[in-house]
Amino acid sequence: MDDNIIKALKGIAGADNVSTDDASRAAYAYDATRLKALPDVVVRPGSEAEVAAVLRLASARRLPVVPRGAGSGLSGGSVPTRGGITLSFERMADIINIDTANRIVVVQPGVVTGVLQKAVEDKGLFYPPDPGSLAFCTIGGNVAENAGGMRALKYGVTRDYVIGLRAVLPSGEVIKTGVRTAKGVVGYDLTRLIVGSEGTLAVVTEITLRLVPKPLSVVTMTAYFADQEGAGRAVASIMASPVTPRCLEFLDTEALKAGAAHSGMTLPGDAGGFLLIETDGSPEEARRQADVIRGIIEPDAIEVRVAADAPEAAALWKLRRSTSQALFSIAPDKINEDTVVPVSRVHEALSGFAEIGRRHGLKVVCFGHAGDGNIHVNVMTDRKDNVRFSEAEKAVEEVFQLVLGLGGTISGEHGIGLTKAPYLRMELSDVEVDLLKRVKHAFDPDGILNPGKIF
Amino acid sequence: MDDNIIKALKGIAGADNVSTDDASRAAYAYDATRLKALPDVVVRPGSEAEVAAVLRLASARRLPVVPRGAGSGLSGGSVPTRGGITLSFERMADIINIDTANRIVVVQPGVVTGVLQKAVEDKGLFYPPDPGSLAFCTIGGNVAENAGGMRALKYGVTRDYVIGLRAVLPSGEVIKTGVRTAKGVVGYDLTRLIVGSEGTLAVVTEITLRLVPKPLSVVTMTAYFADQEGAGRAVASIMASPVTPRCLEFLDTEALKAGAAHSGMTLPGDAGGFLLIETDGSPEEARRQADVIRGIIEPDAIEVRVAADAPEAAALWKLRRSTSQALFSIAPDKINEDTVVPVSRVHEALSGFAEIGRRHGLKVVCFGHAGDGNIHVNVMTDRKDNVRFSEAEKAVEEVFQLVLGLGGTISGEHGIGLTKAPYLRMELSDVEVDLLKRVKHAFDPDGILNPGKIF
Repeated sequence: MDDNIIKALKGIAGADNVSTDDASRAAYAYDATRLKALPDVVVRPGSEAEVAAVLRLASARRLPVVPRGAGSGLSGGSVPTRGGITLSFERMADIINIDTANRIVVVQPGVVTGVLQKAVEDKGLFYPPDPGSLAFCTIGGNVAENAGGMRALKYGVTRDYVIGLRAVLPSGEVIKTGVRTAKGVVGYDLTRLIVGSEGTLAVVTEITLRLVPKPLSVVTMTAYFADQEGAGRAVASIMASPVTPRCLEFLDTEALKAGAAHSGMTLPGDAGGFLLIETDGSPEEARRQADVIRGIIEPDAIEVRVAADAPEAAALWKLRRSTSQALFSIAPDKINEDTVVPVSRVHEALSGFAEIGRRHGLKVVCFGHAGDGNIHVNVMTDRKDNVRFSEAEKAVEEVFQLVLGLGGTISGEHGIGLTKAPYLRMELSDVEVDLLKRVKHAFDPDGILNPGKIF
Repeated sequence: MDDNIIKALKGIAGADNVSTDDASRAAYAYDATRLKALPDVVVRPGSEAEVAAVLRLASARRLPVVPRGAGSGLSGGSVPTRGGITLSFERMADIINIDTANRIVVVQPGVVTGVLQKAVEDKGLFYPPDPGSLAFCTIGGNVAENAGGMRALKYGVTRDYVIGLRAVLPSGEVIKTGVRTAKGVVGYDLTRLIVGSEGTLAVVTEITLRLVPKPLSVVTMTAYFADQEGAGRAVASIMASPVTPRCLEFLDTEALKAGAAHSGMTLPGDAGGFLLIETDGSPEEARRQADVIRGIIEPDAIEVRVAADAPEAAALWKLRRSTSQALFSIAPDKINEDTVVPVSRVHEALSGFAEIGRRHGLKVVCFGHAGDGNIHVNVMTDRKDNVRFSEAEKAVEEVFQLVLGLGGTISGEHGIGLTKAPYLRMELSDVEVDLLKRVKHAFDPDGILNPGKIF
C-alpha cells in the first residue's frame, strides 16, 4: 500500500494505532473458519470521527475497508480477501451509558458481549443474546452478523435488541438510525437493515440496545433419550406445548458420545440423544414451566435430571459446551453449517443429514439450538485428504438442499460471508439477489465496504 | 384515466373488481386522518399474480399505485394524493395456514387483525399486536405502518412478529423475504425494511407471522391519582421495577374528565390522572406481577382496583377506550400526534405539552401507551377557525421539538405518511433522508409506489 496512504492513516488514528508489519497483519487475517487473508494495513480507530476520516480516505482512493470485531465469526465475514484496510475496534470499547430507568444501554462496538452482559446484570438488567463466543466476541461483530445463541429460543437474537445505531457510510458521512425509545417508525428501518449486513453497508460506531429485567431464577435440566430421534420428537412436543423454555439444546448420538468421552462423563444406560433445557422467570414460574416440560418428556426419556443449584447446573452444561471441540476426536476437520428447519421437522432433518453422511462415507454430527430448529450440522472430514474433502463439500450442498426442501434456511445465525456465498442463490432468486445488490449500491456505490462478501 | 388502461385492469382483475364510478372512488379516498384525495381507479386484486400484472402495467405507464388496507391509518398513508390506482385487498383476506407445531401463521394482507387474533387464539396461540382499530384494520396495513398497540409494552410491535413476506416490486417482479423459521440471516433483512415502509417499497401479498403461546391468565387493574404528574411518576416507577406489565395505559386530567363524562363514570375523589394496567402469564405469575405493581403504586394513588373477573376487566377498559371519542366534547377538532419519549421523562413531556397549550391558548390532551413512553398528544382545535387552527399547527411543531429534545421520536406507531412528512427533517438529517431516498430508488426507480408519502 502506498506510503502516503499509511502516512495519512497515521495522521488520522495516531502512529501507534496503524500497523503494517507482518505479525500484526497476520493477527488480523483470519476468523473462526480458519480462512485467512492479509490486510494491507490494520487501523485501530479511537473515535467515530477517526472512522469517518478513514472512510473518506478509503472512498477517495477506492480502498477496501473491512470492519472487524474479535475475529470469532463463523462465515469468514471479517477475512480481508481483497486486502485493504482492516478497521479493528479494540479502542472503541466503552459502555457509554446504562440507563436503568429506560432499560437501555449505549455501547461502542468493541465491547466484549460477556462484559456487556455482566455490566447490565450488575444493575438488575439482562441482555439475552448469548453467542457461544460471548467471552471474547464483540457486540459490534454480533450486530454485523445478527448473532443468536442458546437463549434466542425465548428471547430472540441480536436484531431484537438493537433499537438504534450510529454508523459511518462509506462516503464518511455519519448517520443515526432508529430511536432511543421503545418505539419508533420514522423513515425506513435502517437499524435492522444494518444489523446482519455483515459490515457491507456501513461501519457501526455506537449501538443502543434495549434490555429486559434480569430473570429472578433459572431452572436447568438435562434429559437423555435412547436415540436422537427420541430427543428430536421431545423437542417438537415441548415446542407444541404452551411453555417456551429459554434454552432447548440438542446433541445427536455421535455428538453425545464424543462429548461424554471428551468431558469424562458416564452416560446413563444406552443414551443416544441428549437435551439441555432451561426455564426462567420468578422462582415459582421457572419451576412450574420446568415441571410442565418434565411431564411432557419424562415418559420417553431414559433419565431427566433437574439441577438443584447453580454448581450442578454448570456441571450439566459441561457436556453441551464441550461438544464442538470433542468432535475432533471423530475426524481432523469439520465443515460446520448453521441450518434452520421448522421445529416440527427437526427429526426429519436429522434422519436426512445422517443419510447424506452415509451416501458420502462421512460422519455428519448434529447439535445445537433445537428448540428453534437451528441445527449446527458438522460434516466431519479431513482437509488434507482431497477425496474426503470434496465428498464433504458435496454433502454440504445436499444438506442445504434438504434444509430448503423442509422449509428452512441455510444460515440461522452465522451469516453468509465467504463460506456460504457460493450457496446464496440456492435460497434467494436472481430478482432477490439483484435487489440486495441495489440496496448495497444505495449505501456503498463504490463497493469499498467488505468487498467480496455475501454476493 | 385512459380507457385502455381501465380495460387492461379489467382484463387483469375482472370487470367486477375494477371501479371508476364516483361513489367507489370516494369510498377509497380517505383514511382516519380525514384527509381525502380521489383515486382514478380502484382495483381489488384476487391474487399475487393479479397484483404483479397491475404493477407491470402501472410501471409501463408510470401510474401511481397506492396499496390500501381498511383506511384506518392515522398519517394519510393510503390517501391517493396523486390519483392513479388504489389497490385494495378485500379479496385477498385468507388465513392460509395456522401451523401450531411451529407457532406461525401465514396470511394474506386483507385479513382483519381481530379476525386473525381470534383464529389463532382458538388454537391456543397469540398474536400480540393490538392497534386500537383491530376490529376493522387489516394485517397488511399493520405491516405497512408497523402498527403497535396497548400490548407493545411487553410484546413489541408488528415488526417483531413478521418473519417473512411475499411481495411484488413496482416492476411486477415477485420477491420472497425472510424465513418461515425462528431464525435466519441470509441476505439483508428486507423483511423489516418493508415492514413500516408505508407501501412505498413493495406491495405485500403474503405475510408469515410468528406467534407465541396464549397467556393462561390476565390481571386487569386501574389506578387513579390526584394529578397527571402523579400518574406519570407511577409509570416511571413501575418501569424501573423488575416487572413488565403487558399494558400500562395513561390518561391525563382532561382526558380523564372527558372520558368519565362520556362514559357516565363517577371518578373517585378528585382524581386527575389514571392508569390502566394489565399483567399476564400463568395465574400465579400474572397475580404476582400485579401484586408487585400494586405495592409500587398504592402509596401514591387515590384508588387501585383489581378486576375480579373478565366482565369487570371489560368495564375497567371502558374509560380508556372511550377517551379518543370523548375528546370532541372539548373542541370540534384535534390534531392527534403519536410521540414517544423515554419513559423516565414522560412526566416532563406532559408538563411541557401543557405549557405549549397554554402558550397557544389551546388545550393539549394526552393519553396513550405510557409504559413505553408512547403518548398520543391531542392538540384540540377547530378547523373552521383559521386562527385557532394555525395556532394548533404551531403547537404541534413545538410538541415535536420538545419530544426530540427529550430524546424521543415524532412517531411511535402511526407512520409519517402525509401528515408528518413536513416534519421529517426535524428528526432526520439531510444525509439520512438522502440515504432513505436511495433505498426507495433501489426498490422503485420510477417512483410509482405510493408517491408523495414520507418524503
